[in-house]
Amino acid sequence: MKQVPVGVSARHIHVSQADLETLFGPGAELHVMKDLSQPGQYAAEETVAVIGPKGKFDKVRILGPVRKATQLEISRTDSFAIGVKAPVRESGDTAGTPGIKIVGPAGEVEISEGVIVAARHIHFHTSDAEKWGIQDKQKLSVRLNTERPLIFEDVVARVSDSFALDFHIDTDEANAAGAKTGDLAEIIG
Amino acid sequence: MKQVPVGVSARHIHVSQADLETLFGPGAELHVMKDLSQPGQYAAEETVAVIGPKGKFDKVRILGPVRKATQLEISRTDSFAIGVKAPVRESGDTAGTPGIKIVGPAGEVEISEGVIVAARHIHFHTSDAEKWGIQDKQKLSVRLNTERPLIFEDVVARVSDSFALDFHIDTDEANAAGAKTGDLAEIIG
Repeated sequence: MKQVPVGVSARHIHVSQADLETLFGPGAELHVMKDLSQPGQYAAEETVAVIGPKGKFDKVRILGPVRKATQLEISRTDSFAIGVKAPVRESGDTAGTPGIKIVGPAGEVEISEGVIVAARHIHFHTSDAEKWGIQDKQKLSVRLNTERPLIFEDVVARVSDSFALDFHIDTDEANAAGAKTGDLAEIIG
Repeated sequence: MKQVPVGVSARHIHVSQADLETLFGPGAELHVMKDLSQPGQYAAEETVAVIGPKGKFDKVRILGPVRKATQLEISRTDSFAIGVKAPVRESGDTAGTPGIKIVGPAGEVEISEGVIVAARHIHFHTSDAEKWGIQDKQKLSVRLNTERPLIFEDVVARVSDSFALDFHIDTDEANAAGAKTGDLAEIIG
């Protein structure tokens, strides 16, 4: 049985060093609040506000470390709430996605693209993927046998030596299944 | 192919005649704003506020006609937002569920139970069910081949001469699939 722990992603933002400095001041750095399941990744102490045409979220957690480009990840429920039509995309694939206004304590940034609903995916360490015969970018079917059982199709496999085994879904997907972080899902195809 | 149109249920409330009169005044009646897919059911012009320990929703639509008991149906996302631990239940099965405060223009009601997350279900007219060999209360698997494809398991069949064919899911389930009212789902098991 190919069991994978679930990690539920609430809305969050990744920032570039340049945008971090605009938002938090020259020379700003992120501070680790809590380590995440993926090695080297963490929830930062720093939060920002994001403002869409129909609403805003006041405290969006920054996940570190800084990245090449700023990217806001929200749920589809969130996208209706703030009036931003974010498409379902893999992380980093932001061409043609909507932008948004981001406000920090020292300044604000208007990104021209980078708002996405993250596509469901599983992080595999290379050794897990080899053991189970799974290839990078393979599409999988994954079952959550919860109070509201669901089978997720088109789950993207992401394989790397720097990953830890984790099935990432967003809050809509978790709530639709009645699932929470740490629940076990099963790869069924 | 057993295709069923999707109906996405946003949060809504059913009210008893007694509670309707407390909320809207003696002799109050509901007024039809829009007919729903199920024969005789409608969205009323009337809305109420519901107030939980952590938050409130100002304009919750009443669905008519009045019922024997007042029942609030919310998504799991909603349940976190207002701080009410609503369980997944079939409509009418409210024993042991949380209550909530409901506020109308003429008064307020504190129900002692009746807040649920509606269990996913399909309404079948008796003739649809006979054609496809489906029994009342049967659990079905239903696929939504959307941008974010999902297979819903444990979908409850509800069969009656007074029903029209419709697959009812809530906003979390719809958003997890990227689906909307009118999309076609397929019964696959």
